[in-house]
Amino acid sequence: MAKVDVILRGGVVVTMNPAFDVWQKGAVAVRGREIVAVGPAEEISAAYEAAEVLDCTGQAVIPGLINAHTHVPMSLLRGMADDLRLDVWLLGYMMPVEREFVGPEYCRVGTLLSCAEMIRSGTTCFCDMYYFEDEVAQATAGVGLRAILGETILKFPSPDAASYDESLAYCRDFIERWRGHELIVPAVAPHAAYTSTVEMLQQSAALARQYDVPLLTHFSETAEEVEESRRLHGQTPVEYVNGLGLLEARVIAAHCVHVTEPEMRLLARKRVGVSHNPTSNLKLASGVAPVLRLRQAGVAVGIGTDGPGSNNDQDMFEEMRLAALLPKGVSYNPMALPARDTFAMATIEGARALKLDWLIGSLEPGKRADIAVVDLQGPHLTPRFALGPGNIYSQLVYAAKASDVRHVLVNGRFLMRERQLLTLDEAAVLAEAQRIAERINDFVYHREQSLLDKLVALGGLQREETYEIQVKVPIADLLAVEQRLSELDVELLKRSTRQQFDTYFLFDDPQKGSVRYREDNVLLERSDEMGRLGPALDVAPEYDLTLLGPTREREYENSVILSRSRFTSPAAHSLRFYREYFQPDHIKEIVKWRTRYRILYQGEEFAINLDKLSRPAAGTFLEIKSRTWSQADALKKAGLIGELLELLGVERQRIIRGEYVTF
Amino acid sequence: MAKVDVILRGGVVVTMNPAFDVWQKGAVAVRGREIVAVGPAEEISAAYEAAEVLDCTGQAVIPGLINAHTHVPMSLLRGMADDLRLDVWLLGYMMPVEREFVGPEYCRVGTLLSCAEMIRSGTTCFCDMYYFEDEVAQATAGVGLRAILGETILKFPSPDAASYDESLAYCRDFIERWRGHELIVPAVAPHAAYTSTVEMLQQSAALARQYDVPLLTHFSETAEEVEESRRLHGQTPVEYVNGLGLLEARVIAAHCVHVTEPEMRLLARKRVGVSHNPTSNLKLASGVAPVLRLRQAGVAVGIGTDGPGSNNDQDMFEEMRLAALLPKGVSYNPMALPARDTFAMATIEGARALKLDWLIGSLEPGKRADIAVVDLQGPHLTPRFALGPGNIYSQLVYAAKASDVRHVLVNGRFLMRERQLLTLDEAAVLAEAQRIAERINDFVYHREQSLLDKLVALGGLQREETYEIQVKVPIADLLAVEQRLSELDVELLKRSTRQQFDTYFLFDDPQKGSVRYREDNVLLERSDEMGRLGPALDVAPEYDLTLLGPTREREYENSVILSRSRFTSPAAHSLRFYREYFQPDHIKEIVKWRTRYRILYQGEEFAINLDKLSRPAAGTFLEIKSRTWSQADALKKAGLIGELLELLGVERQRIIRGEYVTF
Repeated sequence: MAKVDVILRGGVVVTMNPAFDVWQKGAVAVRGREIVAVGPAEEISAAYEAAEVLDCTGQAVIPGLINAHTHVPMSLLRGMADDLRLDVWLLGYMMPVEREFVGPEYCRVGTLLSCAEMIRSGTTCFCDMYYFEDEVAQATAGVGLRAILGETILKFPSPDAASYDESLAYCRDFIERWRGHELIVPAVAPHAAYTSTVEMLQQSAALARQYDVPLLTHFSETAEEVEESRRLHGQTPVEYVNGLGLLEARVIAAHCVHVTEPEMRLLARKRVGVSHNPTSNLKLASGVAPVLRLRQAGVAVGIGTDGPGSNNDQDMFEEMRLAALLPKGVSYNPMALPARDTFAMATIEGARALKLDWLIGSLEPGKRADIAVVDLQGPHLTPRFALGPGNIYSQLVYAAKASDVRHVLVNGRFLMRERQLLTLDEAAVLAEAQRIAERINDFVYHREQSLLDKLVALGGLQREETYEIQVKVPIADLLAVEQRLSELDVELLKRSTRQQFDTYFLFDDPQKGSVRYREDNVLLERSDEMGRLGPALDVAPEYDLTLLGPTREREYENSVILSRSRFTSPAAHSLRFYREYFQPDHIKEIVKWRTRYRILYQGEEFAINLDKLSRPAAGTFLEIKSRTWSQADALKKAGLIGELLELLGVERQRIIRGEYVTF
Repeated sequence: MAKVDVILRGGVVVTMNPAFDVWQKGAVAVRGREIVAVGPAEEISAAYEAAEVLDCTGQAVIPGLINAHTHVPMSLLRGMADDLRLDVWLLGYMMPVEREFVGPEYCRVGTLLSCAEMIRSGTTCFCDMYYFEDEVAQATAGVGLRAILGETILKFPSPDAASYDESLAYCRDFIERWRGHELIVPAVAPHAAYTSTVEMLQQSAALARQYDVPLLTHFSETAEEVEESRRLHGQTPVEYVNGLGLLEARVIAAHCVHVTEPEMRLLARKRVGVSHNPTSNLKLASGVAPVLRLRQAGVAVGIGTDGPGSNNDQDMFEEMRLAALLPKGVSYNPMALPARDTFAMATIEGARALKLDWLIGSLEPGKRADIAVVDLQGPHLTPRFALGPGNIYSQLVYAAKASDVRHVLVNGRFLMRERQLLTLDEAAVLAEAQRIAERINDFVYHREQSLLDKLVALGGLQREETYEIQVKVPIADLLAVEQRLSELDVELLKRSTRQQFDTYFLFDDPQKGSVRYREDNVLLERSDEMGRLGPALDVAPEYDLTLLGPTREREYENSVILSRSRFTSPAAHSLRFYREYFQPDHIKEIVKWRTRYRILYQGEEFAINLDKLSRPAAGTFLEIKSRTWSQADALKKAGLIGELLELLGVERQRIIRGEYVTF
């Protein structure tokens, strides 16, 4: 009798071989890293003598699950910020935290944490995209999991590179170091078309082709991404990168939620493997990928969890279940994507999508022994029918859970036995992960307490401490004031008319201050050679964001107010973005027409605003303002404002103190 | 210090009280069946002395989950038949098996199996609709779970009643026996509007009002159901039953997938509680319920697993996760139904939907101690952030699993401790469940092997063993044959012209035989008083299904064939139904025009068919057929057919043996 190391015996052996053989009482014989035989238990026992026979009665012996897309170190951000829109989540939380925290240690610990979770849930191979991928590779290889690991390339600075040239250089080194490894397949991972330059994509493809390694990327995750690509390039993202030769590499693409039929055919022709990530696509509201049509077009589609930042776990049983349910609901066809097809996507078809089907994805002699043993004896898996092979796929896809996984082997080595992890110190990893998370927690907590820090976290803000001195008076006849102004001995620097839509984010806690989002529609005016103003020509809206700190008012003798500190930046995002990011307790809108004179009076610059409020319909106002830098300066300007009011014929006793937002 | 029985101490206490208080290091004090105090651990410890203090550090203490809709005994059918359309699944599998197997013992074992699963997954209360509900109640009360149990009323015979009068009488007894029970709330459960008569609905509502018990039903699960209701009653199902006064009872309605805005307002006004069952609605392809709009309209919406026949488990963690993800994906809004709202639906809002929020659904002093303790220390729940209360809801909804549940109390009694079930013999229940399933398995397996048994299982088939003797000859000139026929000395019994669309379901295994679905479009013809036929007037299609047994051919001297046995029944379902039910290996279509003469020749009845095949376009044929009952009779008729062929001038050597389907 031939000798082998282990026989897994007596369980339901789900081979996922081309005939989809299922042995109700089967066995798998393993020697070294390889599967040497699969079949009915008695045949295997008769033909092989094993150092160990593991009784798998009442269990399913399945090919290890393949997670076709994830970002393993992001497990450290699990549950930090949920139920947010993609841009708020990414720009407001993920990226600021990653900028601050992501380094080699972070990636090592995050990878180990994810490995623990993946082994426990029966995953034996995963496809990753992140930074410091060398750390990810060392941790993964140390634990003994199989992985395709792609170093992420971005057109902007990333946590491990100041530019994409650096990333590409890092990636080349990384490939040199890991190619030919027994468990790790290094890869190039340009993040997505919209975060890449043309040269970056071309160089990434060249690198992948030079070393014959996979190229990982994201395709058409959101409708906005596709729209933007059409606008910029007149092509969809897949067409666009194909035009640049990217698809000549061995591409594995995540998402493909918004791909057209011609794109599907192109993906099939170029043998691009796709990862379907149903939880992430729902959670971030990207949509539901056309999995049925992709598969019909001949594309190999695997299943991925995506990073635990958007999932929040890396549980392929949950992912299979959702992948099987969704197409039924959205196509109104309960026969869509039956359990066997779904299980194939998580095993042999996933392997095909990753171009590893020659090595893994099924239990067949000659393939690597990447195997999970799933307990079928829980109440949620009772009873068991044996009407046909369909029953076992039903159990595995619709009822089994990660916690049913009992043993896991990769490359013939046990990584878990009787639910005990054998190749990593789980308690130590969990403790390290928690320590890092607590530092992140402090960072974000501190920031959440301060609107200013939240604003700074978004980037692009120039910190500047400025103060304002101002006065506001209701005026019945603005034209009369304007007339007197034109007769004064002041130098007119600039005049403009604008309609301003202000949205104030207000908070119950007065210490928080408030945030103003302003859409400023400036009427462009033509002036002739004599400097006389012509009619308004056009509107050029400007958007800015102002943080109004907690009010520190001070009244001067002539009732002029020294206002609070403020920080302003151009508003690069939409009102909606800021609203979801700052989550104010109240929102108030102010709409007004403003004619602004910037003048010099006694050598000092003042703004004189003639305002007509339309929301709330509070009337017309004169406002005089000036920036100030010190208390002495404020005192001096308060005096000058008093003089100006007198010159303009305004009664001081009518001065009001509140801002428009307090009306 | 006041004495209590148990303090659950040191965990994250998620109260779900009106303020949504979360105590990061909290405690819950329980005395008898009640919660007496909830708050920070130190405060509770200072105020109460407990017989037992259970350390819950690293765990979440949550209100027990509420499964708002299920059919617990159906756990015995888990995974038996999946990925089928609703009608095939229900009429082809669930109902035939239920007709055969459902009895008191079945319901007792199925309930215990479900109770084991539900306790293990943190569910402390469920709402059930099934048969023999008294058995369900005894089993549930014995185990110590809380439940609303509705005896199902149907307009057709059910497993426990020959008519709805019997069901109503059973239900009245059931209510009398269980009303006022500490754990069980008996209820009336008219299945749905489309399976009810007017009187049945009115009497159900009257019974519910008489005893002030809940009325459980299904509303608008599928678009077809709503369409049918509009067609029959000119109203949607909810409007229809409201017109009959049903909503005057305390209604708890499952599904509401296809409800209109006015219906939502009506549901809110009548305080109807709704159970959202996302897995079942996806799996059976019913659609996605408008949960956001229902809640906006003011309807209390709980979450249910539906029966394990269509789920396939009763895991409220999976159900919460899906309930939270779906609205985001379908509304393209990632902020839709955030984690806290979803968790509320599984707890306090679910209690409100079941009208039990005065008693359960939150951890508040005075409420019953229905509590689950969830371990937060697995790798998939690491790390833990504490930026705000949102983090714990995220963990519970997006990352926690049923297997994280560690302890469960109902009414102050431990049903599970350290994952050990205390009130039922789990091993015995699993074994009993498996024994019943094996009997079901044999029944279905046997049936699946035989097309005849599958056909019989659908009901409505009259078993009759008939044999046919027949001959088929290609004829170039059918008119000439018809002319000769009119000149023969035969009695014409009937003449008809028809277009027949035959679909054959063929199987690779010749022992299986085949199934023919025929759409027979008979042209109605007018005959005058002389018996002469007038022009075709109308088409009245008939549908029938014929099982053609394995061919047992025998050739007679004049080449006439004795055909196989056949069984015919009217085809009450659609071609699509039968196709999905029989799952043939191949399908072949035959379309022909047939003029059929039924004649008497030598005292024996024959059918003479003049056929013109249009698919495949195989030409024109004469067929002579007769039913036969014995070999001797077949021999005699074979001789007569030979004579007829001669009289019609047909060359015998041209006789062909195959059926049209073999062309």
